Amino acid sequence: MNVLLTNIRELVQIREFPVKKLSGPDMNDLPTLKNAWLLIQDDRILNFGGMEAAPEGTFDQVIDCSGKTVLPSWCDSHTHIVYAGNREQEFVDRINGLTYQEIAQKGGGILNSAKKLQQTSEEELFEQSAKRLVEVMAMGTGAIEIKSGYGLTTEAELKMLRVAKRLDREYPVTVKTTFLGAHAVPKEFKNNKEGYVDLIIEEMLPAVAEEKLADFVDVFCEDGYFSTEDTDRILSAATRYNLVPKIHVNQFNTIGGVAMGVKHKALTVDHLEVLSDDDIRELQHSGTMAVALPGCSFFLGIPYTPGRTLIDAGVPLVLATDFNPGSSPSGNMNFVLAAACIKMKLSPEEAINAATINAAHAMGLEDTHGSITKGKKANLIITTEIPSYGFLPYYFGNDCIDSVICEGKLL
Amino acid sequence: MNVLLTNIRELVQIREFPVKKLSGPDMNDLPTLKNAWLLIQDDRILNFGGMEAAPEGTFDQVIDCSGKTVLPSWCDSHTHIVYAGNREQEFVDRINGLTYQEIAQKGGGILNSAKKLQQTSEEELFEQSAKRLVEVMAMGTGAIEIKSGYGLTTEAELKMLRVAKRLDREYPVTVKTTFLGAHAVPKEFKNNKEGYVDLIIEEMLPAVAEEKLADFVDVFCEDGYFSTEDTDRILSAATRYNLVPKIHVNQFNTIGGVAMGVKHKALTVDHLEVLSDDDIRELQHSGTMAVALPGCSFFLGIPYTPGRTLIDAGVPLVLATDFNPGSSPSGNMNFVLAAACIKMKLSPEEAINAATINAAHAMGLEDTHGSITKGKKANLIITTEIPSYGFLPYYFGNDCIDSVICEGKLL
Repeated sequence: MNVLLTNIRELVQIREFPVKKLSGPDMNDLPTLKNAWLLIQDDRILNFGGMEAAPEGTFDQVIDCSGKTVLPSWCDSHTHIVYAGNREQEFVDRINGLTYQEIAQKGGGILNSAKKLQQTSEEELFEQSAKRLVEVMAMGTGAIEIKSGYGLTTEAELKMLRVAKRLDREYPVTVKTTFLGAHAVPKEFKNNKEGYVDLIIEEMLPAVAEEKLADFVDVFCEDGYFSTEDTDRILSAATRYNLVPKIHVNQFNTIGGVAMGVKHKALTVDHLEVLSDDDIRELQHSGTMAVALPGCSFFLGIPYTPGRTLIDAGVPLVLATDFNPGSSPSGNMNFVLAAACIKMKLSPEEAINAATINAAHAMGLEDTHGSITKGKKANLIITTEIPSYGFLPYYFGNDCIDSVICEGKLL
Repeated sequence: MNVLLTNIRELVQIREFPVKKLSGPDMNDLPTLKNAWLLIQDDRILNFGGMEAAPEGTFDQVIDCSGKTVLPSWCDSHTHIVYAGNREQEFVDRINGLTYQEIAQKGGGILNSAKKLQQTSEEELFEQSAKRLVEVMAMGTGAIEIKSGYGLTTEAELKMLRVAKRLDREYPVTVKTTFLGAHAVPKEFKNNKEGYVDLIIEEMLPAVAEEKLADFVDVFCEDGYFSTEDTDRILSAATRYNLVPKIHVNQFNTIGGVAMGVKHKALTVDHLEVLSDDDIRELQHSGTMAVALPGCSFFLGIPYTPGRTLIDAGVPLVLATDFNPGSSPSGNMNFVLAAACIKMKLSPEEAINAATINAAHAMGLEDTHGSITKGKKANLIITTEIPSYGFLPYYFGNDCIDSVICEGKLL
């Protein structure tokens, strides 16, 4: 099965193997080719080039991309899309003046999601989550990370991760999974957080590893959730199972989570809405990437991650949606791109790099995703007729997507 | 031609004639009917009711709306969608640190749009604008106001308004037009603003009236643009042609524009990002409505209009997109609804009322648009399967639109 895309106005994010993660001024460099073709063989990019030397022969399908731009699909390296129900009522509570933390204290928040999820069958959870996955694929997402963390019992955490793995098998999208048992302290352990951390280490981690359900391990390192000491214990235990850390830090407070992530060679530290100079120094030259989640800042009204500062400091920046029912009920990477330019003052080039190649690195998918590279997965966005790729963040509120190709298949 | 919508999960914004504009606590009241049907005859709503008494007989088309919500289309009472080219470069300039006013000072901004528009043929301008109109119709907009103001010569202003009138004739959407010659002072009049105001009054207004090209008159009443005295002169002159004022005030500064609008019995005063207590007192019991434009605040990073305060003060509030190439390049009313709830702390009910029935009033279309009322235009949004209308602003970034009916036609 081969598919030829012809007359592409501009082919964006062209890279050769091996494709490094980008930082500093390199983030502002976005190689493109105008008036191009691209040939797909099965689920891979076979080749591409300029229209002056277009391939001849017969093809199973030819897609005319006149006036259209073609990019690699978005990679969304931080989501919680496996959840049950929604938290619309808490949205109304916040409009009426309650803070996210106050809602959590009155039994809402993550514990609310956990209660619903525990009562939802694995089949029903799969159906609800698959609907959201299809939505985000239509909005251009071609690889996605999904966290557990609304289970908070061994059984329910495994259920979440099994659903995420089944999504990976049943849809033409690459799913990476992260075990986030340490997302919140369940009610039963309210006065015994140590006991819950013990449960994570002694029961959950081995069970997750036994079933090979997770690629990464995560901890919500934050006041009122898990301390740096808790984080240290959990990440140390996870090394036994070769689970690489990708952790939640500095959403509301700076309590040393960044340094703890760096100490454990975290692939990414995520959120970073509240960031000290010391935190930035920890990240410089650490190998750990920074993941910004502007949808969460928009929805909760908390500060935007200082993405401009991080790039200027040489830290490789990644953009993701944080799609979840409480603090960011949207999986639209196009909105994330626009918000990153408008609110964090990233250039369109920086934002596209952060949402494609750097985001692929943030999931360990740099060899297969995130750029137009021969041999990589044919995961592509074909835009509507827009005058330039900079139009994507400029024309915010419109996704500017004509069609999407996932693993060689036109959706 | 009749079309029956059956099994509607919830039919939203049901009102009886005459439908008043809403203010105060009434804005939080949104009448709905669950498990409903709605019958369209040609371009009108013939009747609706509960499924326990669904109409029998044969229909030209039956649309099953199981699980779906049906609302009246959005009314967008403030746009500038007739423009030429785009201002993406200025977007990048702003990312690099320039302010909107600084860009205007170096020849960008409105004058940049005016230059492009003057050089664009009427046919080409129509084509570019029609593309945007089709986009916003697909996003649920069923009535729209379009301003001139990128012409700034008599000829170019007339060209813009003729294009807007032609859009009204050629598409199944109601277009209201506003003459905004006083949008910026053209370069030729840089040191002779009085001369430009004279031109507006003595040449443009009579020509616009002669061709019956405008329903409303507008002035950008702002430091660096037009003073309250200029505004007074123009609005006074416009009364001769029965042009009702809808004016730009208080976007960056409070210079008395609100009081000037109220003095001239403006239908609406729009923007209001910077609002004093005196301005609010002027609006209370004035008959003038307040139009908030959250997309502009999002894109420019200026304050959001204090919509919560205005509603609490009893001022009828309207939401619109301000779709234009410089300060709000998006015509997505769904985003406006979400931003109004998230950023201005409107309840979902208040936001929907502000974007439908109050928005219809803001264009003088309250007898034909903005509610589910027998005899009104069949302009309808059929949502995807969402659990409630509150999901629309909560699930921001997804438009949640399954299909759109404009004047009885399924798009």
